[in-house]
Amino acid sequence: MKFSHTAPIQPLSQLARIEPATVEDLPRLVDLTTALFEIEADFVPDRQVQERGLEAILEHPNRGRIFVARTDYEIMGMVNCQFTISTAMGGFVILLEDVIVHPTFRRQGYGTRLVNYVIDFAKRKDFKRITLLTDKISDESQAFFENLNFQHSHMIPMRLNLAGE
Amino acid sequence: MKFSHTAPIQPLSQLARIEPATVEDLPRLVDLTTALFEIEADFVPDRQVQERGLEAILEHPNRGRIFVARTDYEIMGMVNCQFTISTAMGGFVILLEDVIVHPTFRRQGYGTRLVNYVIDFAKRKDFKRITLLTDKISDESQAFFENLNFQHSHMIPMRLNLAGE
Repeated sequence: MKFSHTAPIQPLSQLARIEPATVEDLPRLVDLTTALFEIEADFVPDRQVQERGLEAILEHPNRGRIFVARTDYEIMGMVNCQFTISTAMGGFVILLEDVIVHPTFRRQGYGTRLVNYVIDFAKRKDFKRITLLTDKISDESQAFFENLNFQHSHMIPMRLNLAGE
Repeated sequence: MKFSHTAPIQPLSQLARIEPATVEDLPRLVDLTTALFEIEADFVPDRQVQERGLEAILEHPNRGRIFVARTDYEIMGMVNCQFTISTAMGGFVILLEDVIVHPTFRRQGYGTRLVNYVIDFAKRKDFKRITLLTDKISDESQAFFENLNFQHSHMIPMRLNLAGE
């Protein structure tokens, strides 16, 4: 008990804050998306391409938002929220993409904090629905989103790639 | 051959044109989305909700576009294109929703003309990808999109509904 007068050591995950990313965070966001696209079956990582996409999102805050889990020194994870209008829901909805926690910082609660932040943001701003659209995710990831009350849908996404034409 | 001097009778599907919808088309667009949501497992049709969503899209042409197949008298079908920014593609992409041809006008080529119009529009405006996001579609519908070169992806969409909270 002799150290009881000292301040308790706070784990990093509690010191971290969630906030919108800025242009200064671009290099680290490119690192994170590269780590994600290396494991996603549908994508090939390309740092220049990702930087263009990330920069465009940061330049159009009315179209979407990138939130990061961070300390002053490090970005541990990110999420990308795109805003669209749904005829079925009668208003704005969020398309949630690029939910990424850096491998070094996994299993410390950052993913949950990031997604809960998006849910609070969505409720506050009157978005009607959040659709998670990621590559085929592991059972573990699906369980993660189920715990946050996300439900499987009957949607079958199909794609037509136009890049390079 | 005695009628060969008369103009050939053009089928309605060739007289129809594809163009952006306007606010005057709202009632008919609500009819079309109602017909769609009646058959989609994930949705319950609500005319007021759909009208709000459709109106919001028509009021924000920088966020998306509704194209219709029409004559001067009738709207036979519609598609809803929402514009988002993709980090994987490094730029703007289209989310294609509400691909609907009224039951009376099916199997006359309107669906193909509408989707081909979107593909041309996307190429012209330098969109990098089109993602079709509809409810679990029939084998026939999947074949329709495969014929237009859409490919199945590994995506598993999950949803969190926030409406009514």
